[in-house]
Amino acid sequence: MSNINIIAPRPHVITCKAAVAWGAGEPLVMEQVEVSPPQAMEIRIQVVSTSLCRSDFTAWQSHAIFPRIFGHEASGIVESVGQGVTEFKEGDHVLTVFTGECMQCRQCTSGKSNICEVLGLERRVVHSGCAVKVSPLAPLEKICLLSCGVAAGLGAAWNVADICKGSTVVIFGLGTVGLSVAQGAKLRGASRIIGVDTNPEKGENAKAFGITEFLDPNDPNEPIQQVIKRITGGGADYSFECIGDTGMITTALQSCCDGWGLTVTLGVPKEKPEVTAHYGLFLTGRTLKGSLFGGWKPKSDLPSLVEKYMKKEIQIDEFITHNIPFEDINKAFNLMREGRCLRCVIHMPK
Amino acid sequence: MSNINIIAPRPHVITCKAAVAWGAGEPLVMEQVEVSPPQAMEIRIQVVSTSLCRSDFTAWQSHAIFPRIFGHEASGIVESVGQGVTEFKEGDHVLTVFTGECMQCRQCTSGKSNICEVLGLERRVVHSGCAVKVSPLAPLEKICLLSCGVAAGLGAAWNVADICKGSTVVIFGLGTVGLSVAQGAKLRGASRIIGVDTNPEKGENAKAFGITEFLDPNDPNEPIQQVIKRITGGGADYSFECIGDTGMITTALQSCCDGWGLTVTLGVPKEKPEVTAHYGLFLTGRTLKGSLFGGWKPKSDLPSLVEKYMKKEIQIDEFITHNIPFEDINKAFNLMREGRCLRCVIHMPK
Repeated sequence: MSNINIIAPRPHVITCKAAVAWGAGEPLVMEQVEVSPPQAMEIRIQVVSTSLCRSDFTAWQSHAIFPRIFGHEASGIVESVGQGVTEFKEGDHVLTVFTGECMQCRQCTSGKSNICEVLGLERRVVHSGCAVKVSPLAPLEKICLLSCGVAAGLGAAWNVADICKGSTVVIFGLGTVGLSVAQGAKLRGASRIIGVDTNPEKGENAKAFGITEFLDPNDPNEPIQQVIKRITGGGADYSFECIGDTGMITTALQSCCDGWGLTVTLGVPKEKPEVTAHYGLFLTGRTLKGSLFGGWKPKSDLPSLVEKYMKKEIQIDEFITHNIPFEDINKAFNLMREGRCLRCVIHMPK
Repeated sequence: MSNINIIAPRPHVITCKAAVAWGAGEPLVMEQVEVSPPQAMEIRIQVVSTSLCRSDFTAWQSHAIFPRIFGHEASGIVESVGQGVTEFKEGDHVLTVFTGECMQCRQCTSGKSNICEVLGLERRVVHSGCAVKVSPLAPLEKICLLSCGVAAGLGAAWNVADICKGSTVVIFGLGTVGLSVAQGAKLRGASRIIGVDTNPEKGENAKAFGITEFLDPNDPNEPIQQVIKRITGGGADYSFECIGDTGMITTALQSCCDGWGLTVTLGVPKEKPEVTAHYGLFLTGRTLKGSLFGGWKPKSDLPSLVEKYMKKEIQIDEFITHNIPFEDINKAFNLMREGRCLRCVIHMPK
């Protein structure tokens, strides 16, 4: 919602409140901003709820472009539509997604990818290809979590790794994404789901999501990958890197077994962007895969995830540790900095 | 055939001729050596033919243990068997394999791995788990190529990558392994098979194996991965690293498309053992897999490859560029050093 040129005579530019980040790590400031009307193929959304995602936090802390308005894990109601939009109308309930689905490019029509070439990784909040219409019966203040973190984890377990019943899974990082992988693994019937996190408090809550064993990676006596190989009799079937640390991708590969061990990386690293691993890890049968938004194609797949939630087949509510009114948004950033939350849902004024 | 303790009264220690490497890069020397009788679960094989494999050459050139007798890509006839061996009898035709199959460990019984835990990567030529009985009708002087290089390439294309009809394949390195990948890709109906090699002579012969386009990676105007992305409209479906250069694994990943690009590495690097690649390559949908002996389980799978050869469903003869009597074995090493051969088959005296 950044462009402010007025082209169409209606709908008009509107004025609304936004929490603006003016600099790295600085508290967000409530400002009046103007939002342009939707251009061709765009829609304007009245945001209802946003859950704060770790990648918002990382962008806020590090080298993002400022000023900036965060909140990509969001739900809302279509306020108006631009020229050519037939998929949405005023009043539709929607989730916004950071990866789009144009439904026409080589990737979207391949049947084996969710990496849209046209809308790709560039986030354009109001492009109609980056919004998904969902059931008006689903609670927007809960399902906003499906617009990024929870869906990313479930999809990594189901679509990217395709976890088998009875298998052993290791998850590095027990935030919302890692615990969503655990939920996905549990629903697939994994028999052991080992969680690894430097924060011992994460281990206590993790069992509700399927974690069967918790390990602290900082045991000075034995490297974590050796511990995992020892207790699993040679390594896990699957390992997931949900931290955003390329060094842990290597550890995750080393924690997998010979022959068919699969490592899936979901994190966006904050520092060193290069993955480094000994070729022998691959030659002895390991595979390394990336997972962007869990392999879900937003428009094609998200409505069915919302349905699963409505039928109580997947958990979302349990990830919401805090509900925060919009004007207190900085509390959510503080809670995440202190590692004291899973998801803080920020509720917009009605 | 290195242990020389005599335990069983018969069969006895035998004396035979061997081409012994006494030091890195030094010409092999014909020596009389003693070969111990087979111990429990071992078999003693009269080698008929050996084809010189690049990994023999690499071990000879670099940091191998000396003295050493090369020739793992071999065929022969069982001369005697040790205690407990019921699978083989004197006179059976066999291929030797560098990766064994005990048929009992977690890996062998998994149905999804060929990385035997027991016989694993350690080569014990005469263990019965490291030999495969084959049809006595198959010509031993040809099928020795299935004991390593040709099988490794075919399996990488069929088992590890599982190439689909109509797909685009890039192969880095057009030696026997790379051209066997090309043969495998062609038989799967790949529509474009792009070969990359620094030696332009390799390109001329490569079409017979399925290569449809040849690229020189040293074009100073445009990096090879950019050339490939350009001519394939975004990258290949599959890329194979058949050189043994970890730097080329990165290039192979970069040559694959977003969404479903799969890179398979088959080579054993001579220098830097670490694979390094930007995490973004994985996050946008690429996968990196290793392939050891093409995923084939030797005892379970090699006999059917021999059958395919007998039915003319796969080519082997075309890889044999030179036939060399045993006493001229150093010629084979020279031809490989000069890049003037695919496979030299070394024939033992009858």
